[in-house]
Amino acid sequence: MFVVLEGPDASGKSTQLKLLDEALRQKRIAPLITREPGGTELGAELRELLLSPSRKMRPLTELLLMVADRHEHVEEVIRPSLDAGRWVICSRYVLSSVAYQGIARGLGAQIAMQLNDAATGGLAADYTFLLDLPPELAYERTGQRDRFEGEGLDFYAKVRSAYLELLGSRPGAYVIDATLPPEEVCRSILARLPVP
Amino acid sequence: MFVVLEGPDASGKSTQLKLLDEALRQKRIAPLITREPGGTELGAELRELLLSPSRKMRPLTELLLMVADRHEHVEEVIRPSLDAGRWVICSRYVLSSVAYQGIARGLGAQIAMQLNDAATGGLAADYTFLLDLPPELAYERTGQRDRFEGEGLDFYAKVRSAYLELLGSRPGAYVIDATLPPEEVCRSILARLPVP
Repeated sequence: MFVVLEGPDASGKSTQLKLLDEALRQKRIAPLITREPGGTELGAELRELLLSPSRKMRPLTELLLMVADRHEHVEEVIRPSLDAGRWVICSRYVLSSVAYQGIARGLGAQIAMQLNDAATGGLAADYTFLLDLPPELAYERTGQRDRFEGEGLDFYAKVRSAYLELLGSRPGAYVIDATLPPEEVCRSILARLPVP
Repeated sequence: MFVVLEGPDASGKSTQLKLLDEALRQKRIAPLITREPGGTELGAELRELLLSPSRKMRPLTELLLMVADRHEHVEEVIRPSLDAGRWVICSRYVLSSVAYQGIARGLGAQIAMQLNDAATGGLAADYTFLLDLPPELAYERTGQRDRFEGEGLDFYAKVRSAYLELLGSRPGAYVIDATLPPEEVCRSILARLPVP
């Protein structure tokens, strides 16, 4: 099972990774917990380049670096784990690139999808959970801002509507109300997963 | 004028950049001298990731990082300089990606060309000079080996034939015998450029 958490910064993705890990382990499932960007050694360095608030880069540069990180992550970490029969729970995946770089940064969803197809060899999540927050709340919640969080409220709004639009047509994709307490969010996710 | 030097490591590209800079300045042309990867601040960090001999990465990851570097370089450095009427002399450009990542690493020339078209907006060199060396000589000449130089003789041979094949169909592209003394190489290049 390949499970992806999506959502803006401060929507609780890291907390849910932890809660899901604990809950699945209680059911004797030991998932691989990982994230993008930064799920490989090279990716960790790319993550630093990508998130550093002082760094300027063009939208297509950003997309290419995200996709490079993803290719390395899919082929070196995600696919081998799935092939070995392990669950993978990943914070951010293809939808992030399409929503952020493709739509919110204005490059177009098509080029983002094409590059992602090449980078992932078409590997899609079995389940995608969008931790949804109203933009003003997401914006308010972020304290120390990285390069993405440093964007204004308007950017958060664009990302949210991109996410919602993209989710509409995707099988196995659910919108989760991330304003709920973390334990409830975790229960909502678990209720949709094929666990005993 | 956009002039590109191509060729394997140790073919004398850096030396020629210097000699061409001096020669053009004597003719009252002050060129911008630059290189790939690494012609921008972000690019310098990508160059380090790309060349570090201890680093492992997949061929498509390598291509995506090269193309990210190039996009930033074209839009922030090369195109603005050309638009301002300045000569640009650049060590390595699109042909490097097609020869190294596309052909020698086996990804295919087509994906390398497509990504490069997106990254450069189709900006092509006016003149391309291949500093050509027999593979065994290029291999022998490299001392401290970076990640590319660490590849075997066979890799050098693949890169060379890729270069020669690609050059065949390109307008404004010349093969220069890089076994000649540097001053003679520089004279051969200058003889082809529209300088007084």
